[in-house]
Amino acid sequence: MEVKSKVWLENRGKIFFGAGRSLLLKAIKETGSINKAAKIMNMSYRRAWSQIHSAEDSLGLPLLIRNKGGKDGGGAVLTDYAEELLKKFEKLQQQALLFTNRRYQQIFHT
Amino acid sequence: MEVKSKVWLENRGKIFFGAGRSLLLKAIKETGSINKAAKIMNMSYRRAWSQIHSAEDSLGLPLLIRNKGGKDGGGAVLTDYAEELLKKFEKLQQQALLFTNRRYQQIFHT
Repeated sequence: MEVKSKVWLENRGKIFFGAGRSLLLKAIKETGSINKAAKIMNMSYRRAWSQIHSAEDSLGLPLLIRNKGGKDGGGAVLTDYAEELLKKFEKLQQQALLFTNRRYQQIFHT
Repeated sequence: MEVKSKVWLENRGKIFFGAGRSLLLKAIKETGSINKAAKIMNMSYRRAWSQIHSAEDSLGLPLLIRNKGGKDGGGAVLTDYAEELLKKFEKLQQQALLFTNRRYQQIFHT
């Protein structure tokens, strides 16, 4: 038997950020490209774009600065807000997982 | 913005216990009847029965002692194991929710 847990953020009752979008943002941060990030996440560009767009819509804030055209066209960089959101969410998620796993061991196996 | 979280238990990669089944077991404990518990949970008797059965199957242990026929027919009582599982899961779930909510406040709002 093992414990599983999940953390996500909602805005006015609508999910706007969770494990999936956090991994996607991280992959965009690392690759500088929605397209490359989508490939890493094994999803279509369309789906990746729509997940980011939906989070931005729900927040009323941009998460990415998109570079269209030119030599470096198609690239994307996280906004300061997105960097902060990603950092905070990863911290919260990691601490919540750790806590839940430890408490599970204490409650179920001692 | 608000945080949400969820805890569940798996056995060999299969979910067998979470918030829904814990509420269902609790309702059976309180009403002494799968039928009454299903009504409280706003689900069919068939669905309630199948959720309990699937958890029992995955655990390889009975969760309910079913009383068939007779004056008190149709009743169901939790096994000692189910009482223990319910108590432990509720404790874990409550503590995990509390921790996640508090940590969210600390990380996102200070």
